[in-house]
Amino acid sequence: MTEIVIAGIGQTEVGEHWEISLRDLAFAAIQDAIKDAGGLKPQSLFVGNMLAPTLSNQAHLGVLLADHAGLLGIEAVTIEAAGASGAAALRQGYLAVASGMVDVALVVGVEKFTDKIGSDVDTAISTTSDADFEAVQGMTPAAQAALLMKRYMHENEVPADGFAGFALTAHANGVGNPCAMFRKAIKAETYAKAEMVSDPLNMFDMAPNADGAAALVLTRRELLPSNGPHPLVRISGSAAASDTLALHDRKDMLYFDTSQISAGKALKQAGLILDGIDLFEYHDVFSIYAALQLEAVGFAIKGKGWKLAEEGGISLKGKIPCATMGGMKARGFAGGAAGVYQAVEAAIQLRGQAGANQIPDAKTALIQSLGGPASTAVSHILMRIE
Amino acid sequence: MTEIVIAGIGQTEVGEHWEISLRDLAFAAIQDAIKDAGGLKPQSLFVGNMLAPTLSNQAHLGVLLADHAGLLGIEAVTIEAAGASGAAALRQGYLAVASGMVDVALVVGVEKFTDKIGSDVDTAISTTSDADFEAVQGMTPAAQAALLMKRYMHENEVPADGFAGFALTAHANGVGNPCAMFRKAIKAETYAKAEMVSDPLNMFDMAPNADGAAALVLTRRELLPSNGPHPLVRISGSAAASDTLALHDRKDMLYFDTSQISAGKALKQAGLILDGIDLFEYHDVFSIYAALQLEAVGFAIKGKGWKLAEEGGISLKGKIPCATMGGMKARGFAGGAAGVYQAVEAAIQLRGQAGANQIPDAKTALIQSLGGPASTAVSHILMRIE
Repeated sequence: MTEIVIAGIGQTEVGEHWEISLRDLAFAAIQDAIKDAGGLKPQSLFVGNMLAPTLSNQAHLGVLLADHAGLLGIEAVTIEAAGASGAAALRQGYLAVASGMVDVALVVGVEKFTDKIGSDVDTAISTTSDADFEAVQGMTPAAQAALLMKRYMHENEVPADGFAGFALTAHANGVGNPCAMFRKAIKAETYAKAEMVSDPLNMFDMAPNADGAAALVLTRRELLPSNGPHPLVRISGSAAASDTLALHDRKDMLYFDTSQISAGKALKQAGLILDGIDLFEYHDVFSIYAALQLEAVGFAIKGKGWKLAEEGGISLKGKIPCATMGGMKARGFAGGAAGVYQAVEAAIQLRGQAGANQIPDAKTALIQSLGGPASTAVSHILMRIE
Repeated sequence: MTEIVIAGIGQTEVGEHWEISLRDLAFAAIQDAIKDAGGLKPQSLFVGNMLAPTLSNQAHLGVLLADHAGLLGIEAVTIEAAGASGAAALRQGYLAVASGMVDVALVVGVEKFTDKIGSDVDTAISTTSDADFEAVQGMTPAAQAALLMKRYMHENEVPADGFAGFALTAHANGVGNPCAMFRKAIKAETYAKAEMVSDPLNMFDMAPNADGAAALVLTRRELLPSNGPHPLVRISGSAAASDTLALHDRKDMLYFDTSQISAGKALKQAGLILDGIDLFEYHDVFSIYAALQLEAVGFAIKGKGWKLAEEGGISLKGKIPCATMGGMKARGFAGGAAGVYQAVEAAIQLRGQAGANQIPDAKTALIQSLGGPASTAVSHILMRIE
């Protein structure tokens, strides 16, 4: 079986890049990834983008970014699956290389939230939920996550600051990530005093929307020189699943089916069980999502994901390190780039380049991106090639 | 080499479906395609959509349509490349099946223009051109096509009604297509008297924006029973290429590089030369695009595409029949569905099911979709399996 490897990675700092355009952000990440891949020339570009048509008045991003990055002529397309857009683009790139019809695929995730402000951003984000049955009611993803969190806290008797572990871990890890938006650890008291966004979801239970771009160069292993500058990382599992778009259509709102299904398929493809995973990059755009992913994937039993976080089980030295470079909470949530950042960060860990955040001898990583409340889940297993 | 076949096709009538929602439109086409495929169960859904985030306030279409079509759980993603979105979705589905990781892929193209009206539609369509250098100037695709057409007419000494052949052919062929928006032939005088949209581009030089959905079920040939109800159609060539998004960045605005490159690659993959093509479905959203595609692909010499149309060379009995079921002009331009309609119509021809519009013994079809003025071009070769 052909091995599909990540030959190059690139990322920009995540933040409010008022002065950098969408195309320039993408270009920076692409340039770094191609350089990191030793100048390998891609034939196909897969753009992960969530909201540019509404946030930046720009559709048809594929050709725009290909041309702007000096790749005029190559195949270029945009992939969208809400918050999982970047991970979905990675999967399309993976499938294209696996087909044998594309030798080198470039995957770039990019988003520019600062092209709009305030309620325009909320309106744009709300297009990712069901327009006819959710958004039309004024339901925003944050308000919905708050309701989900409230129900979870009620059913599982979670104390008021029960979700603090997610934010504390993320911010502690953000300190060591030069591309993170927030590089400052927070204390339990800071979480406890945080302003409410939508009760019980506070400022630290949601990731900041931010600008950023991340890129990956994918190829088949045999197309690379055998002695590269760093350990190679391969994609050994890839899967995606869908649930209802509207949360109210679920049988059990507090179980993320797609999270379980896509992770299970990816693990099976990789020939691994959960115990063989060294780190997990989850989709902590809301802390309740992180808790539910820990449970659906199987790192915690149902109703106890928050407890695993509270007890330090997800810290760098915990049972299953999560958000190892700060996650979406501290790195920042860059929309369609989020899933690509996860892959870049996991690759950094597997290459042993994570500095103070390094998980010792990390060999395997599970990364999982969500679109909406796990309406979409895309899971990948990355492995260091020995 | 594995043969990838079109196991099922489905399409809705194209028109102003004020009373049908985006999801219901898609469902109708999906249902027909799956039925036509003998109930084959898809694992992955590739949605071709151009403008739903702006036209219908709906992103994250993949899971919405999968769930609505009773396919809850399957992988689902949206593919966007402006007017070529449907064709790009077909290509992603093709690559997925070719990879061996997906056995059955469902491709659906859908668009709902009537979710918005008037200038809101123009604003939405303008997101497909360069936001910073074209749309910001108030340049709409129609105005741009008019400038392109004017230059073409000047350089090639085309008379005032030189483009009439495209509209006359399309409308003549629309009569025989029960899914076409316009099923009425027009006369040369009708074209000559048509109202100007943007001089020299008149009402008949552009396709009507309309609602519609079309779907395809793709699989590997060996997964189908050997004796199906109709001749099988396989995808024997697939390629895409990109040019600058902004038209002003081209060296030669009057030559569609991507049209030539993608068609050339697809032909090469199929082991065919142009003479072996029995029909050509081009992207006649503007008649000037059709002329430039005929030239770039090689059916006409540069500057003479209009002449081929004028002389009847693209009619059902011509040298190279084009827009055989009415094209975008008479069938209607349903945005992200357009490229999928092309594939459905070509499959109908190759199966011998085109009725009055049947190209006798049609064995091979070239279909080509454009995003913008050939900023993206996606080409496929379909062949009847003997």
